[in-house]
Amino acid sequence: MFYHDRELQYKVRVDKPNPLFARMLQQAIGGIEGEIRVCLQYLFQAWGSRGPEKYRNMLLETGTEEMAHIEMLATAVALNLEGAPTSMQDEFAKDKVVEAVLGGMDVRHILSSGMAALASDGNGVPFNGSWIVGSGNIVADMYTNVAAESTGRTLATRLWHMTDDPGMKDFLSFLIARDTMHQNQWLAVIEENGGLNATPVPNSFPQSEEVQGFNYAFVSTYIGNDITTGGRWTQGPSVDGKGEFHVEKAAPLGGIPKLSPPVPGAFAQKEQMTTVDSVIGTVQSKIEGTLNSHHDSNS
Amino acid sequence: MFYHDRELQYKVRVDKPNPLFARMLQQAIGGIEGEIRVCLQYLFQAWGSRGPEKYRNMLLETGTEEMAHIEMLATAVALNLEGAPTSMQDEFAKDKVVEAVLGGMDVRHILSSGMAALASDGNGVPFNGSWIVGSGNIVADMYTNVAAESTGRTLATRLWHMTDDPGMKDFLSFLIARDTMHQNQWLAVIEENGGLNATPVPNSFPQSEEVQGFNYAFVSTYIGNDITTGGRWTQGPSVDGKGEFHVEKAAPLGGIPKLSPPVPGAFAQKEQMTTVDSVIGTVQSKIEGTLNSHHDSNS
Amino acid sequence: MFYHDRELQYKVRVDKPNPLFARMLQQAIGGIEGEIRVCLQYLFQAWGSRGPEKYRNMLLETGTEEMAHIEMLATAVALNLEGAPTSMQDEFAKDKVVEAVLGGMDVRHILSSGMAALASDGNGVPFNGSWIVGSGNIVADMYTNVAAESTGRTLATRLWHMTDDPGMKDFLSFLIARDTMHQNQWLAVIEENGGLNATPVPNSFPQSEEVQGFNYAFVSTYIGNDITTGGRWTQGPSVDGKGEFHVEKAAPLGGIPKLSPPVPGAFAQKEQMTTVDSVIGTVQSKIEGTLNSHHDSNS
Amino acid sequence: MFYHDRELQYKVRVDKPNPLFARMLQQAIGGIEGEIRVCLQYLFQAWGSRGPEKYRNMLLETGTEEMAHIEMLATAVALNLEGAPTSMQDEFAKDKVVEAVLGGMDVRHILSSGMAALASDGNGVPFNGSWIVGSGNIVADMYTNVAAESTGRTLATRLWHMTDDPGMKDFLSFLIARDTMHQNQWLAVIEENGGLNATPVPNSFPQSEEVQGFNYAFVSTYIGNDITTGGRWTQGPSVDGKGEFHVEKAAPLGGIPKLSPPVPGAFAQKEQMTTVDSVIGTVQSKIEGTLNSHHDSNS
Amino acid sequence: MFYHDRELQYKVRVDKPNPLFARMLQQAIGGIEGEIRVCLQYLFQAWGSRGPEKYRNMLLETGTEEMAHIEMLATAVALNLEGAPTSMQDEFAKDKVVEAVLGGMDVRHILSSGMAALASDGNGVPFNGSWIVGSGNIVADMYTNVAAESTGRTLATRLWHMTDDPGMKDFLSFLIARDTMHQNQWLAVIEENGGLNATPVPNSFPQSEEVQGFNYAFVSTYIGNDITTGGRWTQGPSVDGKGEFHVEKAAPLGGIPKLSPPVPGAFAQKEQMTTVDSVIGTVQSKIEGTLNSHHDSNS
Amino acid sequence: MFYHDRELQYKVRVDKPNPLFARMLQQAIGGIEGEIRVCLQYLFQAWGSRGPEKYRNMLLETGTEEMAHIEMLATAVALNLEGAPTSMQDEFAKDKVVEAVLGGMDVRHILSSGMAALASDGNGVPFNGSWIVGSGNIVADMYTNVAAESTGRTLATRLWHMTDDPGMKDFLSFLIARDTMHQNQWLAVIEENGGLNATPVPNSFPQSEEVQGFNYAFVSTYIGNDITTGGRWTQGPSVDGKGEFHVEKAAPLGGIPKLSPPVPGAFAQKEQMTTVDSVIGTVQSKIEGTLNSHHDSNS
Repeated sequence: MFYHDRELQYKVRVDKPNPLFARMLQQAIGGIEGEIRVCLQYLFQAWGSRGPEKYRNMLLETGTEEMAHIEMLATAVALNLEGAPTSMQDEFAKDKVVEAVLGGMDVRHILSSGMAALASDGNGVPFNGSWIVGSGNIVADMYTNVAAESTGRTLATRLWHMTDDPGMKDFLSFLIARDTMHQNQWLAVIEENGGLNATPVPNSFPQSEEVQGFNYAFVSTYIGNDITTGGRWTQGPSVDGKGEFHVEKAAPLGGIPKLSPPVPGAFAQKEQMTTVDSVIGTVQSKIEGTLNSHHDSNS
Repeated sequence: MFYHDRELQYKVRVDKPNPLFARMLQQAIGGIEGEIRVCLQYLFQAWGSRGPEKYRNMLLETGTEEMAHIEMLATAVALNLEGAPTSMQDEFAKDKVVEAVLGGMDVRHILSSGMAALASDGNGVPFNGSWIVGSGNIVADMYTNVAAESTGRTLATRLWHMTDDPGMKDFLSFLIARDTMHQNQWLAVIEENGGLNATPVPNSFPQSEEVQGFNYAFVSTYIGNDITTGGRWTQGPSVDGKGEFHVEKAAPLGGIPKLSPPVPGAFAQKEQMTTVDSVIGTVQSKIEGTLNSHHDSNS
Repeated sequence: MFYHDRELQYKVRVDKPNPLFARMLQQAIGGIEGEIRVCLQYLFQAWGSRGPEKYRNMLLETGTEEMAHIEMLATAVALNLEGAPTSMQDEFAKDKVVEAVLGGMDVRHILSSGMAALASDGNGVPFNGSWIVGSGNIVADMYTNVAAESTGRTLATRLWHMTDDPGMKDFLSFLIARDTMHQNQWLAVIEENGGLNATPVPNSFPQSEEVQGFNYAFVSTYIGNDITTGGRWTQGPSVDGKGEFHVEKAAPLGGIPKLSPPVPGAFAQKEQMTTVDSVIGTVQSKIEGTLNSHHDSNS
Repeated sequence: MFYHDRELQYKVRVDKPNPLFARMLQQAIGGIEGEIRVCLQYLFQAWGSRGPEKYRNMLLETGTEEMAHIEMLATAVALNLEGAPTSMQDEFAKDKVVEAVLGGMDVRHILSSGMAALASDGNGVPFNGSWIVGSGNIVADMYTNVAAESTGRTLATRLWHMTDDPGMKDFLSFLIARDTMHQNQWLAVIEENGGLNATPVPNSFPQSEEVQGFNYAFVSTYIGNDITTGGRWTQGPSVDGKGEFHVEKAAPLGGIPKLSPPVPGAFAQKEQMTTVDSVIGTVQSKIEGTLNSHHDSNS
Repeated sequence: MFYHDRELQYKVRVDKPNPLFARMLQQAIGGIEGEIRVCLQYLFQAWGSRGPEKYRNMLLETGTEEMAHIEMLATAVALNLEGAPTSMQDEFAKDKVVEAVLGGMDVRHILSSGMAALASDGNGVPFNGSWIVGSGNIVADMYTNVAAESTGRTLATRLWHMTDDPGMKDFLSFLIARDTMHQNQWLAVIEENGGLNATPVPNSFPQSEEVQGFNYAFVSTYIGNDITTGGRWTQGPSVDGKGEFHVEKAAPLGGIPKLSPPVPGAFAQKEQMTTVDSVIGTVQSKIEGTLNSHHDSNS
Repeated sequence: MFYHDRELQYKVRVDKPNPLFARMLQQAIGGIEGEIRVCLQYLFQAWGSRGPEKYRNMLLETGTEEMAHIEMLATAVALNLEGAPTSMQDEFAKDKVVEAVLGGMDVRHILSSGMAALASDGNGVPFNGSWIVGSGNIVADMYTNVAAESTGRTLATRLWHMTDDPGMKDFLSFLIARDTMHQNQWLAVIEENGGLNATPVPNSFPQSEEVQGFNYAFVSTYIGNDITTGGRWTQGPSVDGKGEFHVEKAAPLGGIPKLSPPVPGAFAQKEQMTTVDSVIGTVQSKIEGTLNSHHDSNS
């Protein structure tokens, strides 16, 4: 279960409120690389954790920390919205800047929340629960977490670069530092579970059941002949140490698929249901083509 | 640009059609760990690729291969739907099995597609473009790809385990093999770009700008004192080789946030707008409470 | 900021695991009347709270409690999934019950999460951030919260009625009790802010600006003459004590709207752009009608 | 069934078309607090109405009125879009204002609808059917309706404040008046069904089945000791008149949850599946770590 | 504006309630080919109608009729849910049929709506406002409407075939009849606007601005040489009467795209930013690889 | 299966990069009338194709071509983003244009993708798989395709009109030409299957089963008496040649629907469950009203 403090994890100061920056911060709250996602992702992974107990404990800790990050970002949004325009009325009409500011804002910051953060991204698209990934496989989940923290830290550095507000820059430097730790943390779990050796994930599936010959082949769908060489993935031992990379030109092994004609209950067109359609269809279309061209030439 | 063959990449045979398994295969088509996602993800990463050209080329190749995987899965769905019931009418009513089968199906396989695959997941939830991640940072993208292939391969092994249809098992063994390669492939790109050394992602942000002291600290939000030890992430050199792990008890550094009272244009309740509200608010609500009970008793 | 305990707020015991009930519990996690919604709703309201500080404090407390409710429900889902089938293979094929169970499950409980809770509803539809309402108006928000707890408690009683598992019934009785409190709690805030007198929300908008005559009129769009009487909303003082209810037959006051013809840059059909279309259009369609009927009678 | 008039319910006049205001009006059409939502919500509640017939009748009437509100707002959007730019071509390039206007618009007003309203919100996010709440419990539904009209009227006042267009202000004053009535109307139904006494909703569940002691307790998750007092919800009789408010410090009653290890069919990592994992896991990961570093140094 | 009657447009009788059929009917309410979609689509097209007034009038009429169709379907859902199970408790446990029925239902029909229709499809996915298409081009809109009525009528026939309930069959026969009319109705508008001659839509764009040579060419991306012949689209006059069909083998005309390297503010990996990356990148990764293996073997 | 070339189908040149235009191009990538939709729609139709094989072949060819269109548009977005601002820092602050540009952009082009295309529309709303329609009925699908290409070509002409960049205009002229062909192509398939005679779709349903008298009746829900005449759909032979258009004033044939009272397990309010509610309900609410006012005045 959970407790809270009224204070923030780190100081959130806004020196020059900027409603456009408020909108941009929303990406770090409700975007796919944002904090609601990692918060719930780590917690759901904890709640469904099966296996060594220490991972449940750790996921709870970091999931709980992320809740504090949402809180700080929501506070940063609210502070950036202070002083934002609420009207395009006469007195402002001369100053076209007001409309430009309004146009660049998340209009729901005015209309829906009354100058507070929303559970949506930088374009106003709501947070989506489908982003919460917890597969039940610890290494698959850790790679998912590293990915989330990598795109998340990239986002935070872009926000840091975007602003010159000293308070915001300081706050973002804290988030960036935490993302550094979290990337390392999830990689540490992968290391504990075998590192690169843990792949292919899941390692509980017997690789002997794979269709051999394709599990370490780079399949090239490129139609040309000037295959680029030099990629690590085209030769040498595979990264998981269990195979040898090689290149295969893409080629079909599966034949042309044949589906049965439609069943009556599916109510296709009658023309689809006939069995001798390769004959009749051709005849029919030719006749119709003739009739049509007559018609078209008359219309 | 793109070309196609009429044949499939690998053979797709269904020995015993099963409409419930058709629904389950949908997860591998339109789910977050499915093939539409990786297909478009690799292609969008290719199309936005900036930096060494070989990555664009490789992403195009594997994105194009994934298109063939969607095709095979869609074919597998259509074949599993052959013979599925389209009616709960009298002749079937005696056989309760028909209703159980209908109840377990994706009903849109009958109602919307006429026995064909849909662009949705195993519960009928449509594919969502927000899952296509391409950050512009090659290592962040590769971790995202490893994550997608790890959860994707886990899904494929579960489907393999679910069925005893020999054709489906063979087909899934092919997909599982390809996922093995793709995991290795993305890890190979990470290796080329520094391996674990590539973190923290992005490596182009100067770590000196991070708030020091927090970038390698495991922050424990656990309220108890019996901290679990032994995790790789609590001590020793960090996985990226750039810091030293240590543990910090969570503690607030940020004070209590203070937001300004609502501006008039936001139309909060009048009670929220008073400045000395801790005093007046209490008085006011008491007075109003009294008035209300008078009012209510008169109404 | 936030802390956690490793223990649950209340005991969660499952005596007879049931994967269909696991699916039903998902509605209470990721549905619109579920716990992720109220958790984030109360926290976002707290983080954006402007006005008396005590409301921010209280919202933080209850939002934090709801996090513990999600945790308990996620645990209940995981426990109900223990023993669920993962295969429709030969040994089970004789037993049609296995397929019925699989068909009734959230298939993503097997395929995507490996027997753990998801951030989605009872039909597998993901949680949606648009449900998080925080308007910046304390009374509007409290009514939204009462509504969420009313539909939420109704859901919990239906789940309680659905199962005869003693552990689940006990756990749900706890949630139902908490919903009783939370309904009362939000109503208490409304009472503090004027009770029924607080309406119309927002009370900071001058009612003199409303179009008078319509703010306490029940507009009847019913085409018949046998208007039902006896409703509290058709006569007597209004519930907010600020007007008198009366009935008005719906009637148009606004005339027929006239939009300009399409601008060239919008690329409508040429036929839409002509200004004398009432003449030409009629002529044209008559001519075409004649031609068509000739054609149709020939085809 | 339904009929229509070609005239509007109230006059919709736009004196100074403004495409940014057109975008803002979209929130009142397709947003969660908008008119499509209340229209369909009241109608679905009517169509599923069980119990006293007068509520079905009333819900039909107001649901039908809301359809006229969508119509007026859609007309207002179309009128505000007249004269909007459709090009950033040469003649306009000198005037940066054109690009600012285009940037502030809902670009789909030009690109997708050709200067007409869309079924989406102020940020272009589509209307979502999940917002239509009809629980089958009349009081839960009425609170949901009061909430919708409270946030809806707040939105309408913000739009009224935003513009100084006399036509738009007059039109919005009509909507605001109707929202006043609708708030009162739903409250009148609650009054008819017991007022505050109707809670806890649903009142058909026997409160004796609740876990006693928690149904009127304010659970404080605050980690500090300086609990704020003075809130109506911490002492005194509960608002529903059925209990006595009191405060409880949050404390865990539920123990640490224990989930079984992963089943084979779920394909977790092998490291998760061992039963004596606290011992073996540590040993194993140490051995593997050693092996990995050997392997890595050789690869 | 709008009015209503309390009676239904056509009789809705359910002889044998069936909760699985209730779920299937949802597809006709809230699915992409369902009635909410066509209702709102025709009304939004009416409200944004520019050009001949008669189309606005007609669209209003049919949009209003569709509202009555939603009403009838919602009634049919509620009637099919009467008698549905609300419990899996002891007395039913012996009868496995109850669980099969519950598993096949939309569980939200019990849990969320209390045996009433929802604004979602046959899999419980909510109605989505993005489906409302109104382009401002009358012929584009009419084709969209024909498409909606064609898939809608196909759905209705499948539902008709699915059930043997006489009441439901009769009701669906009414809907099917109306869809016949509506298909004809939208085709009649196309006929009035030029029939096949109205294409290419929009006809207000000068075809001389198209890249000539490609506007009537069937581009074959097929990699093989055995091009199927006989399709109407490969030769002869085009259907719009403005060109001549011919076949072109797909071939690239656009060269290889070149994007600039990442800008510093985008925080790509350092390895992506180098300009002579084909040389340096290879060297660098080799050096780093060596360093990494040193580092890894020491950690 | 699929192959690719590294070159584009047609040249994509951007002379004056414009990040606002980049956002607008997103509508053509990830919008409902965009290229991801048609690409996947044609491919899913191909993969589920039952009936004459030539349609599967053709759908594969055009679906594959559309993949190349997404590629070109994604390239166009990336090129339009070159030179876009990544900062609102001091040096730019003097120039308000920078903020206007940032405000008009899709902020995720900077924050999430690092200056590359996303799988979302012009407002940042993600692509949605529900838009992929493949009904299994060839004519329904062809009308859906004509509709998609009609709105798609309208969008392309609007984008062409929006820009004066010569490279972009040339590129869009190519897309417009292709849309001309694709409209004709789908119409050619309809022609092959009977042209207007193919309606009502599906033609495999016996029209004798329709409720006669309504299948060619224009139902007028207009409450007035001045019915507009002259529409092709009110008289004369129907467009499908199978009936005669006529007008019917809307009138209810279905009576007032009666639903049973709520079952206990649905937990409605007690007041809804009484059978003689018209009498008792009124009495009860009066008594409770009296009691409430007593209670409220004492609280």
